[in-house]
Amino acid sequence: MTYRAPVAEMAFTIRQVAGLDRAVAEGLHGDLTADLAETILEEAGRFASDVLAPLNRVGDRHGTPLRDGVVTMPPGFREAYRAWSEAGWNALPGPEAYGGQGLPLLLNAACIEMWNAASMSFGLGPLLTAGGVEALSQHGSEDLRARYLEKLVTGEWTATMNLTEPQAGSDLSALRSRAEPAGDGSYRIRGEKIYITWGEHDLTDNIIHLVLARLPDAPAGTRGISLFLVPKVLPDGRRNDLRCAGIEHKLGIHGSPTCTMVYGEGEGAVGWLVGEPNRGLACMFTMMNNARLGVGLQGVAIAERATQQALAYARDRRQGKAGTAAEGMSPIIEHPDVQRMLLTMKAYTAASRGICYLTAEALDRAHRAADETERRAAQDRASLLTPVAKAFSTDIGVEVASLGIQVHGGMGFVEETGAAQHLRDARIAPIYEGTNGIQAIDLVTRKLPLQGGAVVRAQIAAMRAVAERVLREGGPAFGHTAPRLREAIESLDRATSFLLRALASNRPEEALAGATPYLRLFGLAQGGACLAQAALAAQAEAAAGSTDPAHPARIALARFFAESLATAARGLEETVTAGAGSLHDAALALAS
Amino acid sequence: MTYRAPVAEMAFTIRQVAGLDRAVAEGLHGDLTADLAETILEEAGRFASDVLAPLNRVGDRHGTPLRDGVVTMPPGFREAYRAWSEAGWNALPGPEAYGGQGLPLLLNAACIEMWNAASMSFGLGPLLTAGGVEALSQHGSEDLRARYLEKLVTGEWTATMNLTEPQAGSDLSALRSRAEPAGDGSYRIRGEKIYITWGEHDLTDNIIHLVLARLPDAPAGTRGISLFLVPKVLPDGRRNDLRCAGIEHKLGIHGSPTCTMVYGEGEGAVGWLVGEPNRGLACMFTMMNNARLGVGLQGVAIAERATQQALAYARDRRQGKAGTAAEGMSPIIEHPDVQRMLLTMKAYTAASRGICYLTAEALDRAHRAADETERRAAQDRASLLTPVAKAFSTDIGVEVASLGIQVHGGMGFVEETGAAQHLRDARIAPIYEGTNGIQAIDLVTRKLPLQGGAVVRAQIAAMRAVAERVLREGGPAFGHTAPRLREAIESLDRATSFLLRALASNRPEEALAGATPYLRLFGLAQGGACLAQAALAAQAEAAAGSTDPAHPARIALARFFAESLATAARGLEETVTAGAGSLHDAALALAS
Repeated sequence: MTYRAPVAEMAFTIRQVAGLDRAVAEGLHGDLTADLAETILEEAGRFASDVLAPLNRVGDRHGTPLRDGVVTMPPGFREAYRAWSEAGWNALPGPEAYGGQGLPLLLNAACIEMWNAASMSFGLGPLLTAGGVEALSQHGSEDLRARYLEKLVTGEWTATMNLTEPQAGSDLSALRSRAEPAGDGSYRIRGEKIYITWGEHDLTDNIIHLVLARLPDAPAGTRGISLFLVPKVLPDGRRNDLRCAGIEHKLGIHGSPTCTMVYGEGEGAVGWLVGEPNRGLACMFTMMNNARLGVGLQGVAIAERATQQALAYARDRRQGKAGTAAEGMSPIIEHPDVQRMLLTMKAYTAASRGICYLTAEALDRAHRAADETERRAAQDRASLLTPVAKAFSTDIGVEVASLGIQVHGGMGFVEETGAAQHLRDARIAPIYEGTNGIQAIDLVTRKLPLQGGAVVRAQIAAMRAVAERVLREGGPAFGHTAPRLREAIESLDRATSFLLRALASNRPEEALAGATPYLRLFGLAQGGACLAQAALAAQAEAAAGSTDPAHPARIALARFFAESLATAARGLEETVTAGAGSLHDAALALAS
Repeated sequence: MTYRAPVAEMAFTIRQVAGLDRAVAEGLHGDLTADLAETILEEAGRFASDVLAPLNRVGDRHGTPLRDGVVTMPPGFREAYRAWSEAGWNALPGPEAYGGQGLPLLLNAACIEMWNAASMSFGLGPLLTAGGVEALSQHGSEDLRARYLEKLVTGEWTATMNLTEPQAGSDLSALRSRAEPAGDGSYRIRGEKIYITWGEHDLTDNIIHLVLARLPDAPAGTRGISLFLVPKVLPDGRRNDLRCAGIEHKLGIHGSPTCTMVYGEGEGAVGWLVGEPNRGLACMFTMMNNARLGVGLQGVAIAERATQQALAYARDRRQGKAGTAAEGMSPIIEHPDVQRMLLTMKAYTAASRGICYLTAEALDRAHRAADETERRAAQDRASLLTPVAKAFSTDIGVEVASLGIQVHGGMGFVEETGAAQHLRDARIAPIYEGTNGIQAIDLVTRKLPLQGGAVVRAQIAAMRAVAERVLREGGPAFGHTAPRLREAIESLDRATSFLLRALASNRPEEALAGATPYLRLFGLAQGGACLAQAALAAQAEAAAGSTDPAHPARIALARFFAESLATAARGLEETVTAGAGSLHDAALALAS
């Protein structure tokens, strides 16, 4: 089963939900037009469908064998990567001064979705490179930028993030890797890092590792961590003192090598400081925030691909006689229960896409808006939405991939079908780049309090405005979209107040206990608002004469989401607000 | 990570939730006492933990290679199977006239959970054999029973179910396999069957296939299907004309061979009719109902094992500083978000265990009660609960296994850890023995209308009685258990009325559209009632002087379930009752 990039849907979401049309009208994106954006998406879609999608299965089967420190990527990956980077896809959002095309992150978000839907193992590498570009652009010295940035922007080389050590995962304070000044401005790095994505591969001539380590006499904990750039091949052409010592045997993304990297077994790996000493974590967060949206998009991507595959199967497979059908077996897509599964897949996918694209648009505005107040507000909005984009979308990725298996029945459990690979691949996304639990805690304890709660209130007000427009303007096809969406938003509003009070009253345990259900609730309300906005735009275009059959479908999907999925909001609100008491007592149940 | 059978918890559930104490007092089980039952469970637990659990990983890695028609089971399976059947475990619930021990299905349910938690691939085979025993006991001729039943009861031989053909999965009307009378009372069977669990293996000297096929001139559709017993080795010692032509490469349960079976490539496979001609489906349903509860128990089993593994990891792994902990990193089990995950796992596991055991008890009562009215009521109750036991528990199995991966963080995605295998194994259970969608449709369209709705009303009344007892008798530790549980039950009650009205008004589409969320709602209300009943019993035992620390934990778990998980009930009710309209319109979204 192949993948077709849903370019029309992506373009519609970018323009009508994420607001590209408005941004273009405001002059945020220079001479970019919506038409040009769609042309670029069509190009990207062709590349993703024709060149990358066929690699998905190959990567899963072949894996990335390690021999004598050399990792061999699956057949076809090298050629595809070269063609992909030479076509300029890696450079799409990069700074023009370093060979980039300076196009909006919003446009790139849709492209990231396509690369990862085509092959998550392939798409993952460039996500890390993008994080490296971001960290180097913002924190690297002029010298480091001159030496490395262009090659990373174009994708001639790739980058990695080296955070985790066996004893230091979600908690980096326990990090042990060391860096000693060599006296010539460089450092010698020593330590072992695990779970390093694309830590070693044969796609490019060099790999730029960004490595967290401690300087001598650095304070303990997270305030004593610095970031270093450690290339695989040194500027003079020698191999650096680092190697891939192992490859993980994983549940999924078999085409993406997850490496154990050893630095400085000999004279020490040569590296250079990025940013200030002991401020490495801040630099790394620059990379991670970028990567978090990227991982959220992987969730959307895998959900989209699983949905396409399940839909194709359900149209083809005949079992049972549906409703008032004539003799013979009906395609299973005609059975209500199968329809419910497919619609759930489609609605969750579209909702998480809306949230991710909205986040990308906020980041664009934070960089590009003329007015500083607007830039800052957009940055706050992006900060608020990023953990939701990451965690909600990746949970959705897993759920939708699992439903995709279910639609296939017994065939879904057979690896040959390909549906099972989507679940295996999707399952990493809620874990890496900060587990979804960490995202929820970040949302509640750091993002809700932004500007004294004004950021989240503004976001809720924006959702409410959509619900009110549906109430005023939505035709009969909207059914109960408005009241259901409104209820979800009010649940979010009350849960937000509860959590802000808990934080203000120094009851952090209550806030932490409710974080995960709160994030889900946020995703449902925001996702429902995104779909409703798309539906309103579809209604308007239809009223203006468009006969695109996707328009009534968009209204129906928003309605299904509001009436069948966003209905979970009230229960989640209760879980958040009941949360802590029950959780505290129940810790007993864990002890016994 | 190994598995320890939670014998004390199982025994408590059997006695206090499923009501073994009452049944024993009523004399339903001869001279069986609760103490003897617990001793048997302890024995079974030792076997499961010591002998079977270590095979789980072996089975996953080794798989079941097929060469020249011979399937080789993973190392250790043959010895373990012999020891297991010779110890009498297969014969536990079997009829005494045929070498069985005649013990309650309820006791066997706990044992099935243990075998499958230890190794789902191992536990699966005997589930099929049990179905064969059931079909043969009820429908087999005296001659067939004499020849085959004892060997199946003791487990000396195993049985298979042969339903599926490539074009006939959930819909058996399209079945093509043929059976022709040979003139000597036997038949010659010809056809190809797929997805045949344990269709071929090297554990026993013979395998008894139960095969659905059509007699010459049988009516089309499901009313022309008959059931045949087709042994691998014929009574005279010759090999029958059947073979395993292929093995599926599956996502999980790699230690269980899933075979393509070909019957009658030569002179035709010799078989004998089981039950009446053209009544094969009814006979097969006897097997399937039995197997459906067994598959539900697999969901409980895998959830229990995943929970144990995640708990052990969370107690051991240190990251971050929790709450007011002193210096250094805390075990992650002390972080509220991790506690929420672990409690969710534990609560769902216990709830689905309660539902499955309750179903087993109803089956026992249906067979054993002195009074015919009571037998019939119990049979109706078992019929009502079976689809819930199957579908709710297996959905839970997948969700809990997925949470288990999440608790492990990055380690969870690495196959070596073992957490990922649980998800891979669990994923088949919502599919086989009737997909969970089929279960939901069965529940709504066939089980709700039983006795004009009186059966489901009685079950809801029983749940309500538990909630009212919590309200009257529950101490402060119960928190808001009573109102939350009550709300869930009332949601179930209203959703039930809605569906019964839809069926009565000939609006089956509405009932079908709401079936899956309704089944989930049923599971939440029933599961919450089971946990609340356990909590009341725990409170009573504590009041009577017991200092078992599991008692307060049981109360806390019931509270957590009611306050944090059963809160989803209201939203599900809305989804059921809004259902069809939104689904119908939204089918548009699938077409576009």
